[in-house]
Amino acid sequence: MDEEQLRALLRDLDALKQRPDPAAIDRMRERVAGMVTPAAAARSKIKDMSSEVVDSNPYSRLMALQRMGIVDNYERIRDYSIAIVGIGGVGSVAAEMLTRCGIGRLLLYDYDTVELANMNRLFFRPDQVGMTKTDAAVQTLSGINPDVTLESYSLNITTVKGFETFLGSLKARSSDGRNTGVDLVLSCVDNYEARMVVNQACNELGQTWMESGVSEDAVSGHIQLLVPGETACFACAPPLVVASGVDERTLKREGVCAASLPTTMGVVAGLLVQNALKYLLKFGQVSPYLGYNSLKDYFPTMEMKPNPQCSNPACVQRQKEYMQSKPARDAAAKAKMEAEASAADECPVHLDNDWNISVVDDSDTVTPSILSTGADSLPEGLVRELPTADSYQEPVAPVTSGAIDDDLEELQRQLDALNSS
Amino acid sequence: MDEEQLRALLRDLDALKQRPDPAAIDRMRERVAGMVTPAAAARSKIKDMSSEVVDSNPYSRLMALQRMGIVDNYERIRDYSIAIVGIGGVGSVAAEMLTRCGIGRLLLYDYDTVELANMNRLFFRPDQVGMTKTDAAVQTLSGINPDVTLESYSLNITTVKGFETFLGSLKARSSDGRNTGVDLVLSCVDNYEARMVVNQACNELGQTWMESGVSEDAVSGHIQLLVPGETACFACAPPLVVASGVDERTLKREGVCAASLPTTMGVVAGLLVQNALKYLLKFGQVSPYLGYNSLKDYFPTMEMKPNPQCSNPACVQRQKEYMQSKPARDAAAKAKMEAEASAADECPVHLDNDWNISVVDDSDTVTPSILSTGADSLPEGLVRELPTADSYQEPVAPVTSGAIDDDLEELQRQLDALNSS
Repeated sequence: MDEEQLRALLRDLDALKQRPDPAAIDRMRERVAGMVTPAAAARSKIKDMSSEVVDSNPYSRLMALQRMGIVDNYERIRDYSIAIVGIGGVGSVAAEMLTRCGIGRLLLYDYDTVELANMNRLFFRPDQVGMTKTDAAVQTLSGINPDVTLESYSLNITTVKGFETFLGSLKARSSDGRNTGVDLVLSCVDNYEARMVVNQACNELGQTWMESGVSEDAVSGHIQLLVPGETACFACAPPLVVASGVDERTLKREGVCAASLPTTMGVVAGLLVQNALKYLLKFGQVSPYLGYNSLKDYFPTMEMKPNPQCSNPACVQRQKEYMQSKPARDAAAKAKMEAEASAADECPVHLDNDWNISVVDDSDTVTPSILSTGADSLPEGLVRELPTADSYQEPVAPVTSGAIDDDLEELQRQLDALNSS
Repeated sequence: MDEEQLRALLRDLDALKQRPDPAAIDRMRERVAGMVTPAAAARSKIKDMSSEVVDSNPYSRLMALQRMGIVDNYERIRDYSIAIVGIGGVGSVAAEMLTRCGIGRLLLYDYDTVELANMNRLFFRPDQVGMTKTDAAVQTLSGINPDVTLESYSLNITTVKGFETFLGSLKARSSDGRNTGVDLVLSCVDNYEARMVVNQACNELGQTWMESGVSEDAVSGHIQLLVPGETACFACAPPLVVASGVDERTLKREGVCAASLPTTMGVVAGLLVQNALKYLLKFGQVSPYLGYNSLKDYFPTMEMKPNPQCSNPACVQRQKEYMQSKPARDAAAKAKMEAEASAADECPVHLDNDWNISVVDDSDTVTPSILSTGADSLPEGLVRELPTADSYQEPVAPVTSGAIDDDLEELQRQLDALNSS
């Protein structure tokens, strides 16, 4: 909102005090009414996502993911519902990213209020201090993208009543009737108890979820994919030290708080939502676990199978169901592979064209030559600065980290170097 | 700003039309005046950063980095000036992170205006459409943290006049006289030409800078540290294909645009600012280069030495100076090591206590036991869920990626496995 508008209003009020004028009151009324919904004035709801490249299209850069060959059908994102539990340093940024990506529906859970002490992380503003985090989030997010359906749950999921509402909302049909249940739960909470509650709810519902966390010293974090029955649940491999019989909150001594940084939390939120987009829109490889050690810029990955002796009965039940459904799963995977193989033989990749994607004649543009790997001739206006990639030698210094190279000769070379040193 | 306040104002205007009332006008005037500076009302300037843990302290979670042993003196961040070139999807988020971290001074450069097509990335709001990006950024950032000195340069650094202003501003004393020049330049531009201009300016000034970039398909990016004379400059290892003699902007065909995602850009901004914080506040390892491949969650690192045949004369000159200063550098490093060694023998780690940091008696808290590595006894209320870490076995599945393991036995094992397969 423009401060200048408010200053003009002040001048008008001063004038009004000097001389009563009903017409002036009408004009002021009109202007204040216009200020009530400034975002809606700048950006009305959009029915279908367009890939048209104009400055006024908020989805042009997202729909371009289709033309770039990254995503098959970007607009499917409107069919998805995501629940975010914990609207703090990670959850609020995750919510903003999904809102700007045009997700169909967002369910937001938190019981806390905005404080000035939260201002060292992204998203919340000083003028929102005192509002509930869910209300403040809805205020900001609805202004950014009115196309997203936002549901705000200001409640504590670790209470009996809160848990019931939480569980019910994860299963419920959306208010417009388009969605039933949620497609993914993102846990962005900051304590063990709340994680165990999300774990319990998702195990009961067989609901896929992603967990995230940031260390108390603010310099590392992680994300993790949890598919009940298929991967380890949060109780399958518990932390080495946990609170027992004591309220976890009282363990935090008065006057002592954890550190936090907008950088670490922004990176973790970005990795989390990227993994969620890959999972929902089916591109790239969904990471089962990804760590972030910012002091060394080290990103460990791993996979964890479920623990048959897991202390969570719902997890054990989901594991049994997953084992029992193995033959059906294998058959479905085989049928899908065969169908794809025969489809590739017989017909073009896309039969329908619901979104009016047109095939572009690339012969007069530079894009395909840059994207394609084997192009020897460059379009007009471009020259090679160095020999072609095929004859390009190794960089000056060796790559210092990366995936383990399982190439036989490379391993032999490393072995020889170690033996001779 | 609260919409409810505006709605109340509407009701008052309606009442005023029914019945003129000077006292009512006075009350309305007072409330509108309060709305003009909502951020300032919620958050006034703070003279010294406090580590006090109260909800009203916006710096408590940052000052906690000192107590956690990550940063020696966090408040030094107020002495630093950072220039951000390009206030787009990466630059705007980097600016917000640094503002929330309480950086002393931010210089922002961009010549573009905010469009709805930018709304798929973080930071800008639909109601800012039409404003210059630098003005919109200053509007938002000054509301978030009034302690940061913001300088807005709405200009094109690739023009002759723009370059002169850019170069001058990087050297200039700040308006309050506290800072001379900048401590770091962050390049967040989206084209080759602008990067070469930043490279030229930093080579001329001997100014350390960090470069960032996101791919046209929106799913990968990188950050890079450039120290003139010491590391490769941007011209030392140019891209394989560059525009030659043609205006780069005309290469982009009408109606075609690059894809972008708030996730990738948020991660790159986070990695960039984290590297900047590590560099300025001297913690962790500053990464010379860090890539981000989001499809595979792969993060390559490497180092690049300068090219003695670099096409940039200022780079070659900085390389000569760096070589010539080697004896002095070695002597200084040796002296510093010796001073630190003798200081460690003789006196406590911190002699002065400018920020009134008090040593906390941890004997009655749980924090030290969690943080310390060798603690066998746990504080009251905590139990071990699993055997102690020393007897804890490897996770179920092996780590699937990570740094190259140069352990001899591990390489031998991999080699045997490959030979036998």
